Amino acid sequence: MNSGRCAACKYLRRRCPKDCIFSPYFPPTNPQRFSCVHRIFGASNVGKMLQQLPEHLREEAADTLYYEAQCRIENPVYGCVGIITQLHEQINDAERELARAQAQIAFHQHSPHPQPQQQVQVEVSESADITDSSWLEQNEFDSSALLSPLDSTWFF
Amino acid sequence: MNSGRCAACKYLRRRCPKDCIFSPYFPPTNPQRFSCVHRIFGASNVGKMLQQLPEHLREEAADTLYYEAQCRIENPVYGCVGIITQLHEQINDAERELARAQAQIAFHQHSPHPQPQQQVQVEVSESADITDSSWLEQNEFDSSALLSPLDSTWFF
Repeated sequence: MNSGRCAACKYLRRRCPKDCIFSPYFPPTNPQRFSCVHRIFGASNVGKMLQQLPEHLREEAADTLYYEAQCRIENPVYGCVGIITQLHEQINDAERELARAQAQIAFHQHSPHPQPQQQVQVEVSESADITDSSWLEQNEFDSSALLSPLDSTWFF
Repeated sequence: MNSGRCAACKYLRRRCPKDCIFSPYFPPTNPQRFSCVHRIFGASNVGKMLQQLPEHLREEAADTLYYEAQCRIENPVYGCVGIITQLHEQINDAERELARAQAQIAFHQHSPHPQPQQQVQVEVSESADITDSSWLEQNEFDSSALLSPLDSTWFF
């Protein structure tokens, strides 16, 4: 029921062919979606990237390209990578909190009489204190498969 | 000491002007860095994005663009978003583990006699069980500032 041109063909002021690569993923009802990916990746690159994928994966690829483009427009310096940095910090926070909780459990398990109100002093590794982007050099979490593009060095 | 053309100008087979926007961030010694961002974003878009930023932020922008481009080449469907998904899953795992540990601490604190070997049954919210990309609709973590581009809906 695709009467009329898709958002991409409208934007590019061209006829929308029957086999238009953009048409299924950039409906005319959401012109902002196309203008966003066009601004960051360029229509030609988006078309190429979709074309290189099997059809059943194109929708997800279009969605993630749109997401990345939005991130880059909102945050022109860091884009998506800003979110990745933030999530790494959250993981470090959670791991620190977990280490504290586990030390407290160990204390309770080895204490002959429970002392509910006692303060437990917990040693947490200094390396877990993330105040800058030093997590880039660390690799404490197990996401090697997804982080593989950069191996141990992140940007360089 | 930039004798010769930068990687971008070499790739584009053009003279490298003195004020070349690519030159400081795409040295001729690393041609792969430029070809990577060119393949995903296009040279013209990369140039525009750098030009729109104050000079002191351009290097970081070039680094994150390179990172994103590498991710997209490695993972043409999800790109960087694949890493974000993975990190969300890690955060959910850590939060579940923390909830278990905290319940165990509460058990110890309320138990009159410590029973180190006793199994503690912990109720963990079913919503924390991430087996697909349902975290996209959740927003349990506090990263609203960085996740703002998409507000509560992620891709659509």
